[in-house]
Order: sequence, then C-alpha cells, then structure tokens
Amino acid sequence: MTAVESVGEFRFECGESVENLRLAYETYGEFDGSNAVLVCHALTGSQHVSNAPAGADHDDEVGDAVETAGQARAWWNDVVGPGKAIDTTEYYVVCVNVPGSCYGSSGPPADGPDGEPWGTDFPPVTVGDWTRAQRRLLDRLGVGRLHAVVGGSVGGMNAVDWAKRFPDDVRRVAAVATAPRLDTQCLSLDAIARRAITTDPDWNGGDYYGDDRPSPDDGLAQARRIGHVMYLSKASMGRKFGRRAAGRDAFGDAPDDPTGRFFPYREVESYLDYNAESFTGRFDANSYLYLTRAMDEYDLAAGYGSDAEALAAYEGELLALSFTGDWHFTVEQSRALAAAARDGDVPTAHHVVDSDHGHDAFLVEPEAVGPPLRAFLADGVDGRAVRDEDDDEPSGGGGGGPDRAPVHSSLFPG
Amino acid sequence: MTAVESVGEFRFECGESVENLRLAYETYGEFDGSNAVLVCHALTGSQHVSNAPAGADHDDEVGDAVETAGQARAWWNDVVGPGKAIDTTEYYVVCVNVPGSCYGSSGPPADGPDGEPWGTDFPPVTVGDWTRAQRRLLDRLGVGRLHAVVGGSVGGMNAVDWAKRFPDDVRRVAAVATAPRLDTQCLSLDAIARRAITTDPDWNGGDYYGDDRPSPDDGLAQARRIGHVMYLSKASMGRKFGRRAAGRDAFGDAPDDPTGRFFPYREVESYLDYNAESFTGRFDANSYLYLTRAMDEYDLAAGYGSDAEALAAYEGELLALSFTGDWHFTVEQSRALAAAARDGDVPTAHHVVDSDHGHDAFLVEPEAVGPPLRAFLADGVDGRAVRDEDDDEPSGGGGGGPDRAPVHSSLFPG
Repeated sequence: MTAVESVGEFRFECGESVENLRLAYETYGEFDGSNAVLVCHALTGSQHVSNAPAGADHDDEVGDAVETAGQARAWWNDVVGPGKAIDTTEYYVVCVNVPGSCYGSSGPPADGPDGEPWGTDFPPVTVGDWTRAQRRLLDRLGVGRLHAVVGGSVGGMNAVDWAKRFPDDVRRVAAVATAPRLDTQCLSLDAIARRAITTDPDWNGGDYYGDDRPSPDDGLAQARRIGHVMYLSKASMGRKFGRRAAGRDAFGDAPDDPTGRFFPYREVESYLDYNAESFTGRFDANSYLYLTRAMDEYDLAAGYGSDAEALAAYEGELLALSFTGDWHFTVEQSRALAAAARDGDVPTAHHVVDSDHGHDAFLVEPEAVGPPLRAFLADGVDGRAVRDEDDDEPSGGGGGGPDRAPVHSSLFPG
Repeated sequence: MTAVESVGEFRFECGESVENLRLAYETYGEFDGSNAVLVCHALTGSQHVSNAPAGADHDDEVGDAVETAGQARAWWNDVVGPGKAIDTTEYYVVCVNVPGSCYGSSGPPADGPDGEPWGTDFPPVTVGDWTRAQRRLLDRLGVGRLHAVVGGSVGGMNAVDWAKRFPDDVRRVAAVATAPRLDTQCLSLDAIARRAITTDPDWNGGDYYGDDRPSPDDGLAQARRIGHVMYLSKASMGRKFGRRAAGRDAFGDAPDDPTGRFFPYREVESYLDYNAESFTGRFDANSYLYLTRAMDEYDLAAGYGSDAEALAAYEGELLALSFTGDWHFTVEQSRALAAAARDGDVPTAHHVVDSDHGHDAFLVEPEAVGPPLRAFLADGVDGRAVRDEDDDEPSGGGGGGPDRAPVHSSLFPG
C-alpha cells in the first residue's frame, strides 16, 4: 500500500522551490541495514511495483498510508516479489513516485500551497530532481547506502543518475533498457506527443482541473498512442496485429470519420485506442508534459566532459541490460553506456537480450530479465546469469564495439 | 504548367461514382508513340514533378491550362528533366495528380456537383482508382502502351499496381522505396496522424471550407510532423539535429507551453514545426485522410492468392529500388516485392542503395537514384547501372534473405 511522506522544502534544479515536497512510495520486505533496493519506475509508472506484502514501515513507522485512486497496476510484479528476481524476502524494496507524476507525489494535479492543484505552476522537474528526492525519502526511512538501484527506461536514467550523483551511496546499478540520453528521433516523437496535449483545447494552458471541466483526453490519448508505437517493435506489431481488421468484439471505437467508410478499423488501431482510452483514466496530461520534458532533458554527461567522467567517481558495479528489438532505447545506447562506465573503471556488464518485443521487453519478458537481475543483485557483474555481450561471441564476430575487445579479453580470459 | 482534363463519369472501387472526374496533370517532352513515361507522385506530391518545359499538348491539344495555387514545388526536378535520369528530351513524361488529392484533381476541396467543395462526400479512393484514372487520362492523351511507370513511396505502389492491373500496357515498372503493402507500424502511425486531424475541433467532421472558417491546421500539422519522423532515419535525424537547442533564427515557434520554461526548444522541433506549418499552407486535411486511407489499404495481393500471382500476367520488367536507412518502406519489403515478381517470372532487379537518409533518400539522393533509373528505362534490368542485390555480395555475406542464398550461390559461384 502506498504511503506518502513529506520531505520538507525542496529546491528543484530549475531554481524553483516547493515548501513541502510530498512523496508517495511503497516498500516491500524488511530492512536489515544493508539490503535496500530502490526500484525506479518508467515514465508513466508508479510506486506500485509489486503486489508483494508491504514493508513494515507502512504500518506505523513513517508516512501516511493512503489509497491512491486510479493507480497503475503493479507494473513489475513478475520481477519483484517473494522468490522473484528482486526477492522481497531478501531485499527491502523501495519505489517512489517521482515528483511531477500523478500517483500521490507532489506534481501538477496535486494540491499546491493554496489548496488548489498546482497545474503548470509546479516547478519543472528533472531526472536529477527525482534522484535527490529519492535520497531525501531514503534518509527518512533510515536507509543510507543502497544495495542496488534498478530502473527501466527513463527509470534506468534515474538509476544511472544515482551512480553519477551519489557515487558512494549505491553498490550496484542495474540500468535496464535505457540510455545516457535520448536520441533525436525519440526527442521528436516526445515533442509531437506534447503538442498533441497542448493543442487540445481542453488542455487550456494546463488549467483544466475540477469536476465540471473537461480534461484534454484527446491529446493525452494521442500522446499515448505515439508512446505505444515507440514501446513496440516493427516485428512485434506485425506479429501481434498484422493488417487484420478488428473483430466485432474489438476494444476501442473507430474514430468518427466519414473518410473511413470504405476501410477497415484495424486490430492495431483498436489496440492503440483501447490503451489510449484507459490511459486517460489513470494519468494526468500535465504530468505527461513534465515527465517527458525530464526524460528528454536527461544527459548523463551534463556537468561533466563525458559520460565516462560522469561515472568515474562511482564506486559500485553496473549492469546495462538491453533488448535487440528496442528502438526507443537501443542496444547501441546501452553499449555506449557500458563503454563509458568501463572507461570510468566501473566493473560493468552489458547483457543483451535477443528479443523482438521492442522496448516493452523489459516489462513483458520477466523470464529473460529476471535471471541476470537476480544474479547481478547477488554477485554483481560476476553473477552466473549475467552475460556480457562479449562473453559468448565467436572470436572476431564483430558484435561488440572494437574499443571493447581488449577490456573483455583481460576481464574474461578464455 | 498544369492542365486539367475531364475524363467523364468515374466509378470508384468503393462503388460510388462521380459524374465527371477531373484530373490535373503535367506533361514534359514530346510523345513519339512509344516513349511515354508515367511518373506517380507520393502521398502529398503533385503533378508538378519537374521544372522542365511542358509537353506540346499543354498548348492546345487537350485540357485547360490552369494555374494551381499553393502547389508543391517540383518534387523530382533533380531526376526528371532535360538530360536528367528521366530525360525529357527522350521521353514523354506524364504526371497526374491523384483523385482525392488537392492540386486540381477531383477531391475533397474541389467543387462537387452543387458547386460547393465535396468535403467528405467525395468517394473514398484507392490506389487502384488512381491507376484506372491515369489509364483514362492517358487514353485522352493518345497514349496506349507506356514505356515505363515510375513511382516512389505510395507512388511506387501505384506503379506496381499498373503491372497488376494493366499487365500488357507497360514495359518497365520502377518501384522506388515502396512495398507490396504497408506494415503494421506504419499503419499505426498513419492512423494516429488521421486522429490528429479528426480530433481537431476545426476539422468539424470534414466541413471546414470557406474563407470565414478555420481549417484544422493544428491537426494537419501534427500529421505532418509524424510523417517527417517516418521519412527520416534515426541516423539522419541524429546527424542533422542532434540534441541541439534551436538558435535565435530558428524556424517555427516553440509551443506555448509553460511546462517547457526550463527546457530548450530544440532544432529538430523547429524543423518539424517549420515544415508542419508550411505544409498546412499547401495541403488539405481531408485529402490527407483520403490519401493515407488509400495507402494503408493497398495490398498488392488483393484479389489474388499472393503477390506473385498478382504480378504473374505482367509482361514487362521490374526494378525495385530500396534504401538501407528507410524504415517506412524497408529494404525487406522491396526484397519481398522483387521475390514475388521473380516468382511470377518477371525479369526483376532489386537495387539496394546504401543510405542513411531514410525514406527521403529517394528524393534527396538523385545521384544514387538517377543512374539505375536511367539505365533501367534504357535497357531494363540488364542496364549497366542496375545492380541486383545479389550481384555484388561476397560469398556467404548473408546480406540477402536466406531464401535467396542458393540462387546467389548458383548464379555467382566463387
């Protein structure tokens, strides 16, 4: 169950402050002083990472237990829980809803100082703000050094940011389906998604809260449709939906468009429409603007000369986990992240999962994600199920970057 | 200069008819009885393919010469003209604005029987309708058998449709950056683009014509932004724009969005916004709906058991020209088209251009597109500059599909 903790005045990277930042979070398992694992959620995820039993602090220690309406379902229940890869009988798992989001933490739809929703008066947030806010909450929970930070997608940027910002505070960072920074193509699609929201008349400059006012559902739905295309691969979309017309029991509604009168409403449209519609019931349009801005802005090298320098002070180990069919956060980007970490003398593995599920793979392939994560949490990059991409390549296979071969040879002889 | 010809009553594939279909077209060069080349334009292209001198018929033979306001600039001027790959001193080049478009042919913004714009009362169109309408116009121009049909993108589908629908009427079909049918990912993006238009309140169910009424520019601009992402590759976007902030002299305007107050307006956004804005000045939103519907619906195999059967009656030769960085119409799709044609005993070459320009390559790399096109028009698949993808592969290189390797081995031993 979600708890909410106030962590006091918080100054954001943009220079603006809020008087009392509230953070919604969940914990699972028992803290033994050295077994804390922070899990960072993706763009539209929440603190509700698992259906596992809540940690003890939720009963009485800190925070107010709350019910969060419309919350996303447990988004990594196959990976986090008793006996699962991130085993809540072994680790004390903490997941925090990032500031700017809409699942109970301070953000645009939450009440501001005047008792009205913040709206766009809420300070712009960055991934660094998320990291610093998480640090603040962990202090309240009595967690000093983390055993690990694990995150996927922009949550992976959040995880990597821990290694950059608090290099002594974490032993192991697992950066799943992520990148040191977003590429131009994805920046473009995010900008288009935001335009869909800001050109929806019901967005009204961000001022749409209140029961009697329409919310910008058309725009938010469009943003989500674009998102889903980014989360799937060409191959997985083709395999799942092909060019088939939707059946009678299709989810979603064909758009009211007379130019479609001779043409089928396709299964893939039905899928996108259904998901877009359910998304508008659980997410806030302004939060979508805030969080995509944070993701777009994230640049591991910012403040340093390079990614390697940003990671040079990090004392722990890094697992970069990537998926061959992911075009949102590509294998090449994870490779670059791993190379930078190695350049910064961080013990690193880049584990590539062969998958055509696209970016969604990190959510929908627990059988591929679980074993390396479990092994990395237990034994670091030397964990048995952690495979570095150079490990199993035939000599001269050329799959890894040419700059990697010497490092590989020395670390994994024979 | 554009001429407009009325070709009489026309029944569309959907079953609806118009009393008098009007077709805007341009011709270049002189017809000698056997040198006609039909060029098929892409989704938002026009009949104005070149700035070359107009053909003789534009002076007096048929059609009414007209000025078409806001027409797209000559979209293939580097490829079509005197001395160019499609040499207008040698060939009689005809390009027809497809029905449903907005450059002078019958379509939603053109006047219907009551003197008012058709709007969404215009019949839904298909690529097959375009082919049949072009056949009708060529009859009026006195052109029986075509020397060649050349088209790119959905214009390439149009070109291939000639081989399917009028197999005796064309000697050579050059299908550039195209596919037998669109894949699921692109169907999705087209559906999202249409939603952007139909959810724009100014679209008003398709009824927005008239000087005193707003047109759905926000929606059409969004559709165009999505289009541009499809037309470029990840690599070309990265190379052109990176993550740079737009300078002071940026084109386009940053969206009016307070959530962006701490973040840069990026060059790539500026590029998309500028192009989107200029597009709304030259294209019609309803036409965009009609033409994407036609593209999405096209399926070479429709009415036949397979692509190969659809092409089996074709008596001419086929050049499929594809680009390695194109994810809208992929190399694999061109390969499938070529394989189907070969299965139908059509002399075929699949010429792959190594390019990271994405789908735009067929427009922006005339130096790569011109030589194989020129050679194919002159000498068919045996033309010197026509390279079949199997020709220059190192033995065992693996670039072709696995089903092709045996063919390769036997054709090019050692």
